[in-house]
Amino acid sequence: MNCIFGIDLGGTEIKIGKFCNGRLIKKYSIKTDASNCGKNILNDIKKEIDKEIGNDNLIGIGIDIPGPVVKGKVLGAQNIGWEEVDVSAYFLSKYNNIKVAVLNDANAAAFGEMGFGGAKGYKNLVMITLGTGVGGGVVIDGKLVEGTTGSSGEVGHIRVERKNGRKCTCGLYGCLEQYTSATGIVKTAIEMRKGKDTLLNKDNLTCKEVFDFAKANDKVAIEVVEDMTEYLASGCATIVDVLNPEIIVIGGGVSKAGDFLLNKVESKFQELCFYSTRSTKFALATLGNDAGIYGAMLSVLGTSNEN
Amino acid sequence: MNCIFGIDLGGTEIKIGKFCNGRLIKKYSIKTDASNCGKNILNDIKKEIDKEIGNDNLIGIGIDIPGPVVKGKVLGAQNIGWEEVDVSAYFLSKYNNIKVAVLNDANAAAFGEMGFGGAKGYKNLVMITLGTGVGGGVVIDGKLVEGTTGSSGEVGHIRVERKNGRKCTCGLYGCLEQYTSATGIVKTAIEMRKGKDTLLNKDNLTCKEVFDFAKANDKVAIEVVEDMTEYLASGCATIVDVLNPEIIVIGGGVSKAGDFLLNKVESKFQELCFYSTRSTKFALATLGNDAGIYGAMLSVLGTSNEN
Repeated sequence: MNCIFGIDLGGTEIKIGKFCNGRLIKKYSIKTDASNCGKNILNDIKKEIDKEIGNDNLIGIGIDIPGPVVKGKVLGAQNIGWEEVDVSAYFLSKYNNIKVAVLNDANAAAFGEMGFGGAKGYKNLVMITLGTGVGGGVVIDGKLVEGTTGSSGEVGHIRVERKNGRKCTCGLYGCLEQYTSATGIVKTAIEMRKGKDTLLNKDNLTCKEVFDFAKANDKVAIEVVEDMTEYLASGCATIVDVLNPEIIVIGGGVSKAGDFLLNKVESKFQELCFYSTRSTKFALATLGNDAGIYGAMLSVLGTSNEN
Repeated sequence: MNCIFGIDLGGTEIKIGKFCNGRLIKKYSIKTDASNCGKNILNDIKKEIDKEIGNDNLIGIGIDIPGPVVKGKVLGAQNIGWEEVDVSAYFLSKYNNIKVAVLNDANAAAFGEMGFGGAKGYKNLVMITLGTGVGGGVVIDGKLVEGTTGSSGEVGHIRVERKNGRKCTCGLYGCLEQYTSATGIVKTAIEMRKGKDTLLNKDNLTCKEVFDFAKANDKVAIEVVEDMTEYLASGCATIVDVLNPEIIVIGGGVSKAGDFLLNKVESKFQELCFYSTRSTKFALATLGNDAGIYGAMLSVLGTSNEN
């Protein structure tokens, strides 16, 4: 059978998906060897492909990386030790007659959710990933928008607080990430719980607990969630002012709060969005950690190695 | 010669440009007849084309309108009395073998500036028009991004002030338009001049005067311009977070303040933008009121009436 490998290259592990005719046949992970400026990574991936291809016919490799990519060119990926690495040239020199696609991890996730996940059936979407930080990906007319320096979809750094904004890891103040990431939500909870009778008053509070307590009707936890969803809805309204997509897909660890989170964001968005964009749809991501391998695979089908 | 008409249909006048081989040969305006729900408008335009075409060969008509358009379909244009109007069908029924392009006016201006104005040579841009209100247009990979409901580029409604934001005409609070439009700038000046020794203390203060006084080193006028450019730079940083375009083009009446305005926005943008987008370029629009006819003409070359 004709097979494509979708590879999600992360800082700690490399997820490998073998797809035949668009269906995921096998998936597993290996450790990322970031030693020696990540020099072994591509060889390690090649070994796995050679092991797993069996009697099948390799037609493509899609690989997403944790750093900016412009038209297949990796500009750098700090946490795997890479500066500019020509991933396409490597694989094209190892295998004949294959297509290779290289893209950014947040973009791959957006692309995967479009093809197989929460945004299936849509071609104009923005994905927002709420994890330790906040990232995103933009798809217009079924094509990824990478941006001039590979930085489109950096929605975590939209300024949502102008005065006394929290300092962000990026050096700016008041970034969306500081209020809607898992870290930001816990920070808000720690601020809001002070001197109050609330379940939030515990050691090592996690973001999941904040949502769990809110679902259990803890008044202060609900306030924290209201605060977070107001910021997120405001950020979504801003994104929609610029791009007017069909749908916004919310993924990442924080999105496991599910419909409880989504319903609040949707309802606040209706209050905060420009009137002609009220029909914007919202969905939760459904592929979880597999979004990258799906998106990487899918991007092979949309590339011709012409760039 | 093969000719294309670029038509900029506004609320008070219709600008008509006759282009031969991409060059503007003649331009003039007629009044917009918005009576009877704007029923005469298309006939009025046709009469002008018939009058001006002479012995030349009509190959296309591009027309921009003051309202949302999706894939050539006009969704409505309040100030010319239109609801849904099939502009393409009208002209295609009147002339054989021509191409017709219909688009939104802000988008046409962005497209025109890309082809012939401040963004010439770029294919990824956002245009911001600072007039009585604030609008915009988005071009990615040389193609207009209209948005799902024709509302992409509504950058005037990005929320830049979260607390005690000014109420906007759209019903929201703290919109960019309220601080960076001509109206918004005068509003700020009136707030800031109170009790101060400044040239701003005059009747019927205009936005142009605010900039003129700032250029003449009036301290309070400079503060007003600093305030406005900080909001504008913040809005630009937000747009760039989402799309990471090559260039932002600033047009509209307020942009006549020229490099004095542009330099301040650029320098504040460097402080407020995400680090990987610092290479974003800025330019002033150069086509003024002709941007629409240029963009409308150009959009004919990019359409095949397949939609």
